[in-house]
Amino acid sequence: MGFLKAKGVVYKPVDLVDLGPDSDEVYLQANVKAPRMAGLLVKVFAWFLESPIFGGILLYFLKRNNLIHKLVSFVELQEPPLFEPLHLYKGSEETEVKCVDAALPPPEKVQHAVDCLQYAEDVSESPKPSFQRWTILDYSRSYTSGEITPLMVADRFIAAVRESSSPSLQMSFFINFSVEDIIRQATESTLRYEQGKPISVLDGVPIAVKDEIDCMPYPTTGGTKWLHKVRQCTEDACCVMRLRLCGAIIVGKTNMHELGAGISGINPHYGATRNPYNSSKITGGSSSGSAAVVAAGLCPVALGIDGGGSVRLPAALCGVVGLKPTFGRVPHNGVLPLNYTVGMVGVLAATVEDSLIAYAAMSGNLPSDPSSMTMPEVCLPMLKSANYMSFNIKMARSGKWFDDCTDEIRVCCSHAIAKLSDKYGWETVEVTIPEIEVMRLAHYLTIGSECSNSIAVHQKKNLDEMGWDVRVGLSVYGAFDSKEYLNAQRIRYRQLQFHNKIFSKADVIVTPTTGVTAYTIKDDALKTGELDYINGAALVRYQIAGNFLGLPAVTVPVGYDKSGLPIGLQFIGKPWSESLLIHVASAMQALCTSEYKRPEVYYDMLAK
Amino acid sequence: MGFLKAKGVVYKPVDLVDLGPDSDEVYLQANVKAPRMAGLLVKVFAWFLESPIFGGILLYFLKRNNLIHKLVSFVELQEPPLFEPLHLYKGSEETEVKCVDAALPPPEKVQHAVDCLQYAEDVSESPKPSFQRWTILDYSRSYTSGEITPLMVADRFIAAVRESSSPSLQMSFFINFSVEDIIRQATESTLRYEQGKPISVLDGVPIAVKDEIDCMPYPTTGGTKWLHKVRQCTEDACCVMRLRLCGAIIVGKTNMHELGAGISGINPHYGATRNPYNSSKITGGSSSGSAAVVAAGLCPVALGIDGGGSVRLPAALCGVVGLKPTFGRVPHNGVLPLNYTVGMVGVLAATVEDSLIAYAAMSGNLPSDPSSMTMPEVCLPMLKSANYMSFNIKMARSGKWFDDCTDEIRVCCSHAIAKLSDKYGWETVEVTIPEIEVMRLAHYLTIGSECSNSIAVHQKKNLDEMGWDVRVGLSVYGAFDSKEYLNAQRIRYRQLQFHNKIFSKADVIVTPTTGVTAYTIKDDALKTGELDYINGAALVRYQIAGNFLGLPAVTVPVGYDKSGLPIGLQFIGKPWSESLLIHVASAMQALCTSEYKRPEVYYDMLAK
Repeated sequence: MGFLKAKGVVYKPVDLVDLGPDSDEVYLQANVKAPRMAGLLVKVFAWFLESPIFGGILLYFLKRNNLIHKLVSFVELQEPPLFEPLHLYKGSEETEVKCVDAALPPPEKVQHAVDCLQYAEDVSESPKPSFQRWTILDYSRSYTSGEITPLMVADRFIAAVRESSSPSLQMSFFINFSVEDIIRQATESTLRYEQGKPISVLDGVPIAVKDEIDCMPYPTTGGTKWLHKVRQCTEDACCVMRLRLCGAIIVGKTNMHELGAGISGINPHYGATRNPYNSSKITGGSSSGSAAVVAAGLCPVALGIDGGGSVRLPAALCGVVGLKPTFGRVPHNGVLPLNYTVGMVGVLAATVEDSLIAYAAMSGNLPSDPSSMTMPEVCLPMLKSANYMSFNIKMARSGKWFDDCTDEIRVCCSHAIAKLSDKYGWETVEVTIPEIEVMRLAHYLTIGSECSNSIAVHQKKNLDEMGWDVRVGLSVYGAFDSKEYLNAQRIRYRQLQFHNKIFSKADVIVTPTTGVTAYTIKDDALKTGELDYINGAALVRYQIAGNFLGLPAVTVPVGYDKSGLPIGLQFIGKPWSESLLIHVASAMQALCTSEYKRPEVYYDMLAK
Repeated sequence: MGFLKAKGVVYKPVDLVDLGPDSDEVYLQANVKAPRMAGLLVKVFAWFLESPIFGGILLYFLKRNNLIHKLVSFVELQEPPLFEPLHLYKGSEETEVKCVDAALPPPEKVQHAVDCLQYAEDVSESPKPSFQRWTILDYSRSYTSGEITPLMVADRFIAAVRESSSPSLQMSFFINFSVEDIIRQATESTLRYEQGKPISVLDGVPIAVKDEIDCMPYPTTGGTKWLHKVRQCTEDACCVMRLRLCGAIIVGKTNMHELGAGISGINPHYGATRNPYNSSKITGGSSSGSAAVVAAGLCPVALGIDGGGSVRLPAALCGVVGLKPTFGRVPHNGVLPLNYTVGMVGVLAATVEDSLIAYAAMSGNLPSDPSSMTMPEVCLPMLKSANYMSFNIKMARSGKWFDDCTDEIRVCCSHAIAKLSDKYGWETVEVTIPEIEVMRLAHYLTIGSECSNSIAVHQKKNLDEMGWDVRVGLSVYGAFDSKEYLNAQRIRYRQLQFHNKIFSKADVIVTPTTGVTAYTIKDDALKTGELDYINGAALVRYQIAGNFLGLPAVTVPVGYDKSGLPIGLQFIGKPWSESLLIHVASAMQALCTSEYKRPEVYYDMLAK
């Protein structure tokens, strides 16, 4: 198709780009040229894309019309490629943290995290909210006091999952869960409490795992009907093993967008995961089930994988906390290789405190990892004991980007930031982060190419078992050449320079987590899956730096739209600054807790 | 072309591959399906490849017939991609080395290197050879004693280059050299010696630089007629600056294969660089001029870039030493970005000792480089003082691969290894390094994709100024998709596992440097360039691990074929083991020096 070659942008040197508030850098809104498709339409579109000659022509115009040619494929830029967002750990400069040896056993790390919480309790001044989620410490206290046992919770959990799967609800939370395996774990945990020897505060706490992460005794489907047949799950992923070592009860494999190749959470094989705040709405994805089970109260913590916002955006849409650590912070062993350079294990949790405990349990590189020698410690934030008025946090806000969301989200998020300023005196620094849409396209090209490479050998023979939206996705994913892939990595390097400059002026970048709240699940999408790239672009709008640049990020629920659907606020941090991010998220949460609402679908696991 | 999809190999897990001498792993000889082309034929071929539809079909069959589809594109393998061959520095375990701070000023490092040499001289037992090349220390002694001055050497150098460019010789050593700039540097150096204040032993020593490396006041052409017009050279590359800081006289920019996109050294714009041992033969490339000027006695040291053997193979063909350090050891700043992950600055030198001095001057990362924190020191080998009988070096030899060269090379290299065993008692460990040809194809795909990406925006408008062989090369380079690029990187990861295992059993891998000696420059190639992928595959056969895996490697002249053309022996080392490699090369050189022959074209720069 070289003869049709489009003109590409000539990017100016990074040092000539004005990152100030009055920059003349144009904010380019996502210019998605693709209508919503579901039902027969998406089938026909997939067939066309998969046809040998016509498919190639169609893909060419799809790429051109969606500005990939102009902004990525044929551009001129000076930067070398950055293939993996690895960051050198240079030691912590943070205050109010407890730095512990990265090689400590997980239960010891968890205890250090708990110390960061308990130290604080006396000084907590938050007003008592009308709706409060149970935390890991609530479970631990209830078990220790004997009010309730892990076995009782397991029984409630199993009953709740069954109820949520009933024809009237069809929440589609799980792809797999084994009553037998849950009861076995709960029995062991109950025995430990009876003997007065729980392993850690996580002992007996139900934790759900996205079905993209290896976890015995379950197959790892990746949301498909076939992947587990060509790739056996033979042992726990490292992150799961670490939680198990702390005594957590792994309660099953949560539903996800098929192959992580979409972010609605509508899975034609295992059902559309439904939002506990309104079961006619999506949860977002791809860690859809993990967000939903936390929101519905089934678990205080669930694991997800975040390759393009897949932890943070469903967390925001479901009104829970989502934490995506720095690339390399949590070992990736045992995660489906659906991509190589953008996906990371993340935590979905009912509260910021619980995200800290799970983060502490899972953090720390393996000795076999090349970056292990440069990351000798994990720093845990001393939550609430911290005097946030002394933190002097500078929050970078890129105005046009920040505002590119619905009015309700913009107002709600701005209000939340104002609370931080009012309460703690934190400063908002107005900046311009340029080429956001370019980064989104470069990331799409990257995650697409990597997914396509990973699936390629199995694609053809399993095509009939795939959802139609994923078939379209895979066709596009496979349409990039090596030059385009390399240009995307050069854009990655370029964006890292911009972000480094922003972080020289601010501690965190603050954005809404998503551009829209949860939208409606339409019936025509249930069997075929759905293509909705316009809503999709709005959902991932604020996610990409976390994945493409490997930066840590956290989302906190800060309010609701008029229809009662949750809104999240996101903080993006410097590499390895998880402890600061958790501090900031905790400060934000403290100012919002009093307004938190109970979801429509909610199971009170510790009810007396 | 998906409908014509070929079957790919299913690679077995690394741990199931037998790396022992009796392994049943098949040694696949390069199966190049492309005839030699030059003159009109290569023009027609380029036109076909560049034509929109037919070109695509032709490229498909080229890739398929050359086993790229079967061995790279459509394969099934378990490994993740390794994008850059970065290695963690874990400190030196070597004996007989002097480890110095990587951040020392270059002249101090050079002095440490000299200490490693001078310490030794008394115990040297080598017989006096009939032909001996002048070394850096010879220059330094002559200058210090006042027998000769840098200005006198400059005059001789200028006269020699002019003579070598005369119609009867047409050696085509240089693309650019400035009499004025050379005289200016020589005058300054002469003054320093007159004042008794030379900066280092490199003061006044002529050093030539491949025209792929930025070096003031010259444009950096990359062997093209256009690249310097779209990319200005505004300052010295880091490696050049470090040599300049030691007082070296930079004498000009050496000829190279256009864009480094070939390895014959036949450049249609600046002439075919001719081999000083026989001016009807090639020098090899792409650092063709740098190898030739060292061989011809014009400089004791020249710089090259080694992206696919481009330092080592011309060194071997021209009978000089070629040292390619570990990826990341020498800063890459100021080198043309013709690739991103395989090219490294290397040294071409008359002797192993001189390669050590130049290596010492240039080594050490920049603070801005992410690997700088993990490479705090540079270890320099204490040459000749070392008792090589106590070294107990284990040399891994992969039989079928080693033997895949001409009879003369095989006999000569085997004889050289036998000398090491006889003299020092070093042991040869028979091993099997599998998938060598797969690695060559994966590397070709990688360097091709990266070159194509780098050149893409300028390619079309400068096509008429390019050689025809390069036009063919660029057409093939641009024909890979992102999935293929990623598979190549997964093969890179896989090969690194194999090499790590080999290095757990041996200190170095020993191979011939090339599969053939210098072949004849045919007249039809002079104007159009030449495609000779069969000879090409034989030339790069032993080079790839050095580039694709970032391993250090060195070639030493060990003999000549019947027609008097040089033969090199290569040692490939573990990451960061340059000091051991230089020790080994020095031991080898000591056993071969007595047989070294004077080239046909040779300039005696220090003649009295």
